[in-house]
Parts: sequence; C-alpha cells; structure tokens
Amino acid sequence: MIECGRLLAEIRRKKPLIHHITNMVTMGDCADATSAIGALPVMAQARDEVKEMVSQARAAVINIGTLDPHQVEAMLEMGRQARERGIPLVLDPVGAGASSYRTSVAWLLLKETAPSIIKGNGAEIGSLAGLKEARIKGVHSLNAGGDPFLAAGKLLSTLGYRAVVIVTGAEDAITDGKRRARVLNGNVYLPLVVGSGCMAASLVASFAAVAEDHFQAAAAAMATLGVAGEIAARVKEDEPFSGLGPAGFKVRLLDALFGLTPDELDKRARIEVQ
Amino acid sequence: MIECGRLLAEIRRKKPLIHHITNMVTMGDCADATSAIGALPVMAQARDEVKEMVSQARAAVINIGTLDPHQVEAMLEMGRQARERGIPLVLDPVGAGASSYRTSVAWLLLKETAPSIIKGNGAEIGSLAGLKEARIKGVHSLNAGGDPFLAAGKLLSTLGYRAVVIVTGAEDAITDGKRRARVLNGNVYLPLVVGSGCMAASLVASFAAVAEDHFQAAAAAMATLGVAGEIAARVKEDEPFSGLGPAGFKVRLLDALFGLTPDELDKRARIEVQ
Amino acid sequence: MIECGRLLAEIRRKKPLIHHITNMVTMGDCADATSAIGALPVMAQARDEVKEMVSQARAAVINIGTLDPHQVEAMLEMGRQARERGIPLVLDPVGAGASSYRTSVAWLLLKETAPSIIKGNGAEIGSLAGLKEARIKGVHSLNAGGDPFLAAGKLLSTLGYRAVVIVTGAEDAITDGKRRARVLNGNVYLPLVVGSGCMAASLVASFAAVAEDHFQAAAAAMATLGVAGEIAARVKEDEPFSGLGPAGFKVRLLDALFGLTPDELDKRARIEVQ
Repeated sequence: MIECGRLLAEIRRKKPLIHHITNMVTMGDCADATSAIGALPVMAQARDEVKEMVSQARAAVINIGTLDPHQVEAMLEMGRQARERGIPLVLDPVGAGASSYRTSVAWLLLKETAPSIIKGNGAEIGSLAGLKEARIKGVHSLNAGGDPFLAAGKLLSTLGYRAVVIVTGAEDAITDGKRRARVLNGNVYLPLVVGSGCMAASLVASFAAVAEDHFQAAAAAMATLGVAGEIAARVKEDEPFSGLGPAGFKVRLLDALFGLTPDELDKRARIEVQ
Repeated sequence: MIECGRLLAEIRRKKPLIHHITNMVTMGDCADATSAIGALPVMAQARDEVKEMVSQARAAVINIGTLDPHQVEAMLEMGRQARERGIPLVLDPVGAGASSYRTSVAWLLLKETAPSIIKGNGAEIGSLAGLKEARIKGVHSLNAGGDPFLAAGKLLSTLGYRAVVIVTGAEDAITDGKRRARVLNGNVYLPLVVGSGCMAASLVASFAAVAEDHFQAAAAAMATLGVAGEIAARVKEDEPFSGLGPAGFKVRLLDALFGLTPDELDKRARIEVQ
Repeated sequence: MIECGRLLAEIRRKKPLIHHITNMVTMGDCADATSAIGALPVMAQARDEVKEMVSQARAAVINIGTLDPHQVEAMLEMGRQARERGIPLVLDPVGAGASSYRTSVAWLLLKETAPSIIKGNGAEIGSLAGLKEARIKGVHSLNAGGDPFLAAGKLLSTLGYRAVVIVTGAEDAITDGKRRARVLNGNVYLPLVVGSGCMAASLVASFAAVAEDHFQAAAAAMATLGVAGEIAARVKEDEPFSGLGPAGFKVRLLDALFGLTPDELDKRARIEVQ
C-alpha cells in the first residue's frame, strides 16, 4: 500500500528544499506547485552556484523544456552533485523525440546523472525506449507507442533498472522494473493545463524528498496531483462565470494542492499496485 | 466576409503546432492562449533545434519583448526556415521605437525573415513606418501617430506589400495594402492585461496555420480575442469578490477562449471590411 | 505621517515607467503588480539596450533571483545609469546568504550601483549585515537573526547610511538609519505567494518613482501590498470553491491592487513611525 497521506504530512513537516533547473514557460507553475504542497522551491542555474544550492536541497528536478547549452552544463553539474550527495533527482525529458538535440541531451543526462525517477508522457518515454510507434508533435504526445509499461520496461532495461519510470496519461503507469502501479485519479482538465506535467515533476521530487522508496513517492505524487485535479473541477451550478476552463482550473488545482489533507488524500487516492 | 467560426473549428480539428520564440515575461500566457484556442504551443530557441522544431510547426511566432543576442540568432534561423517551408510567420515587434537596439533588431527580422503578418500597437507600427509622431514609453504606446491605416500602409510600402499588418488599439486595424478591416470587438480590460498583445500574436499564428488568406486569419484572430474579452468581463452582481481586475479577467479570458464555440464567435464578431 | 493615498494617486496620474531586471520565476508577477498599481513595467536586459531603456524610466528594480553572468553585467550597467540619472534604484537581494555567488553578486551591486532602497527578508538582510544567526534555505528565510531594525541598521552602517532598508516579515521594518517605520498590514496568505516579495519590490519602485522621500515611498508601498492582501482574503461563505489558497489569493491580490482607491488605502494603512 502506498502511504500517500503520511508522505504528504512529512512534506509539510520537513518543508524540503527542491532545487529546479527547469524551462522558462512553466517555471512559475513549478514553483507554485512545490510551494502549494508544502515544500520550498528554488530555481538556480548559474554555474557558480548550482553545486552550493543543490547541497542544501533534499531533491532536484531537471526539465529540458527550453534548453540552451549553458543550461545543459548546469544540469550536468546539478545532477552529478545530486548523485554524489545521494538526494533524489527527477528528470522530466520534455519533448524528447521531437528534435535530435533534445533526445541527445536527454540521453546525456540519463547517462551522466543517473536520475532516480524519470517522468514523461507516452511519446517521450516511448522515444527514449526506442519504440518506433512513439510519435510526438513539439512537446505533445500523439502516440505513446502502446502499453506504457512496455515502454517503461524497455527504458529501464537500457538503464540497468536503476530508476523508477512514470509514464503519464489518462492512467499514470509507474514501475521500477519489478513493481507496477497504475494511478487512476485525474480528470479531463489536467492534460489541458500547459504546466501540469511540469508540476507533476515538482510534486514527485517533493514526495521523493521525504520517502525512502522512490516507487512509493512517485505513485503518491501522481495520486496527489490527480486527487487535487478532481477537487479543483468541482464547480457549483450557479457560479457567476460558469465556463470553467484550463486557466481557472489551474488556479483551483494549486489551491486544492494547498488545501488537501492527508486524510482526504488517502480516502480518494486510487492506486493499483501489482 | 471573414469566416471566423469555420477557422476556429479548423484549429480545433487540426491542432496545429505553433512554434514560438518569445519573451520571458509572457511566455506562459502565449502558451496558455495557444492551447486554449485549440492549437499546440511549443517554445524552443536553442540554435541546435530551432530548425528541426519549426519543421514540425504549422506557423511560427517571433516576439522581441526580451531580446538577447543568442535569441536573435535563433529568431533569424527560425524565420528563414519558416519562409523556406512556406509556413506563416508572425512578428510581434514589442517595444520597437523604444530603443535603437530593438528597432534595429525589428528591421533585421523584417528584412531577413519577411514575416507574413506583423502585429504591433500604434507606436510600434508607427515607429517602424517612420512616423515622427509615434511615441512609445518602454513597451507602451503613447501616441500611435494618427490613422493606424496610414502607419500600416507606409510600413507595407517599405516592405513591398508582402505582408499583412495589424495595428492593435481600441479598434484593431488590419490591412494588406489593398483590403482593410476594422475589428470592433474588445473592452477596456484587454489592454490592462500585460500579456494580451503577446497572446494576440499566438492567436493570429493559430488562425494563420489553418487559413489560406493571412488577411482573413488576422481579422478572425483579433475578433476572437475581442469576443473572448467581452465574454470574460461578464460578472454577476452578487459575485463573492466583486472587484474584477486584470488578473481575474485574464483567467476568464483564457477560459472564454477555450469555451468559445464557432457559432458564438460568428454571432458576436464585429469586423468591418472595406 | 506617510501620505499613502496621495502617492498612489500620483502613480496613477504619472504612470511612471519602471525598468526591471528580474528573475525568470516571477517576472510576470512583477509586470502584473506594476501594471495593477498603475505604473508601466518594462523588462529589458540586453547589454545593447539597458542604458537607453533605463533613460526613459522613473525607477529601476534589480532582483537577483535567477542570476547568470550576462545578467549581472546588465544589472551593473542599469544600476550605474540609474545613479547617474538620479532615479531611484530598488535592490531585491533574493537568496543572499544562500550561496557565496549570490552573496558576492549582491555585494558587487551594493557597492557599484548604490541602490536607493534595499528590500529583503530577514535572512537576506541579516546575511548582508553579517549576522551569524541569519539562516536561509534556498531563497526562504528561516531565521532573521533577531530584531530586523538591528540587521537593517548594521547594513546601513556598512553602506554609509545612503539607503533605505526594508526587512519584510509578519511586520515589515523600514529604516533609513534615523527614522523607523513598522508596517502592520498584511495577512497569512501573502508569504504563501511565491512572488509576493518580488511584487513588493515593484511596488516600492512605483512609489519611489513619484515620491521625494524614499523612506515614505517604502512605507507606503509595503502598506499598499498589505492592505491589498487584506482585501483579497475576504471571501463570502457561500463561494462556489471555498478553498481559497495561494493561487486564487494571488489573482485577488493583483485585482485588489488594481481596484484600491487612495481613500481606502489611507483608511486601512497601519504604519507606525518612530
């Protein structure tokens, strides 16, 4: 059983610092989600301070959404330091498969930093796993290439099974090669929010910062995002502006993350572990 | 007649990828607006992937709001590739006229990339047209230099009439040198939203991605933004927090873009074509 | 007495341009807050235009939240130009004390640009003042190192008393070495908003742009933020989504800044001057 509520309470008690090197589009969303769940975000990517900043952190996030060469150097430095200090590193390979540059940077990071947890959509994980059916348009998954556990398993096999892989989708698929979890929480609004995938990585890092087991952390974080999404979509009929869309939903999502109690999370989380 | 509704339906059916190189202030707003209208945003400006990414796109946006030299190189590469592939390129010359650097970068882009559509406020277009009365404060239009069609016409003449020019304002003025359109939709809130001009460029690109005629695309996109703004401003008297301001309005604007139907758009669009 | 209302009215009348070089996480928030209060934001950090842009501005903001070496050069250029032109410069030393790089950049800026107003949380100001008790985690203040006026006074002494120092907290402490003000406005939500400190610097600059006295400007700006926060937190019991959290609060905060009248500000401002 995944102890979602206990881990959420731990995040709020310990307020772990989560160091991000992430993209320029959703950087604010990542900071907001980290803060809403109860952890402390920091974004820093100057070569001169990455090592020192990650030394204070309890987990680190790398997101390749808007790369530049200086940033890649900072990511490598951060990743190596995270590994050396033994803190969890979450890699979000945004758009892997969409350009050869992104794919090669993703592989460089996979090899040089050995991330603890890799989270991507079906097309990103499928591309990294070498599935020919995986198709991506920009950073948007068109075709996951079939069974997400197959893609995750292939990638894990290449990486020597030293990571947890999360494949996001209508159901999130999570595996470390031995265990498998399906997270059934969520709704139609979540994929409509531009930053929801990036926020997911911040939540995964926040949970990993307080958990022994990265598999448990990954499942709990994805369930937390899904449960918050379900709560955020509840709208009374007589609301003045009845047209809830992705922007209003994002505000409610962040506030639902903030207001979520461990008990409610445990009551609503729908995780199937195999 | 401008077929706003038909084009909106086409965006939602085709989900065109819109490649942006844009400013750091409103990058998230551009992604949100693109996504809300039904297209797929991608932001990528590493030299090593610009060419490959724009090759997957159906339209491209260049916004010079927060320039740096590396970005200018990426913009040139993106613009040339867009021209070569024959996809529409929208240039948003934010702050042209406010510094000689911005003005010269805007001209470099105009000459080297030959944008299909140029969208600016009165002062930006007036400055590029060489109108002495055009006055800008930072990135804010103080004086459009008189008739927007005059400014647009002068700029088009310099460019050899190979583009559509949009001059935003209380009424938006759109021309390709032969045809003229005035878009009368909109309200007082839209100019109060910091990112509304940048969002407009994303919408213009989304419409241009599915239209044969850039003039039609420009008019339909500006009407769409205006109509969504009108819908977003409707607030019931007894709303808990009655003080609707630019921030709440922006959330509603994005959700109105998302919820807008082709029929409602056609019913509300007020475009005068000459 | 601090003339909050009069200064607010002046901002709205003069619409001063506020030039920012700020961090990538909250850049949009800074622009939104500047615009909501009635000033005009501009963000520009290309070496080739900083000097020209700051020449049009009435105040400038430097925020070191996400540093890189090119940005530091632009900050130095901007700061020197602001000093030469005699416009107020606000320094927000985000995360000073958290890495030796940030601390040294903060000192470089303090020495080379001689900011008019320095605004930080307890740990940032305490670190710059050399208080050993000051403790920071990433960019988050853990321990202000005791009395904020002591920290502010030590920093001022080092700087030769040529600045106003603001130490933010449950109560904001403001001093120029002779006068002291405590701003008692605010609520529990404000520190939960990731960008609230950065927004504060934008408001301080907006007030300083229209005030003779930087001490008055600092106190009025902090009271304005606090009052807007109090207004933003008012929620009716039967609101559809009852869980007000930091994200919904931020939207309301910006709208409360926009809707705040000079009279209401004067009525609600709680500033104790010694």
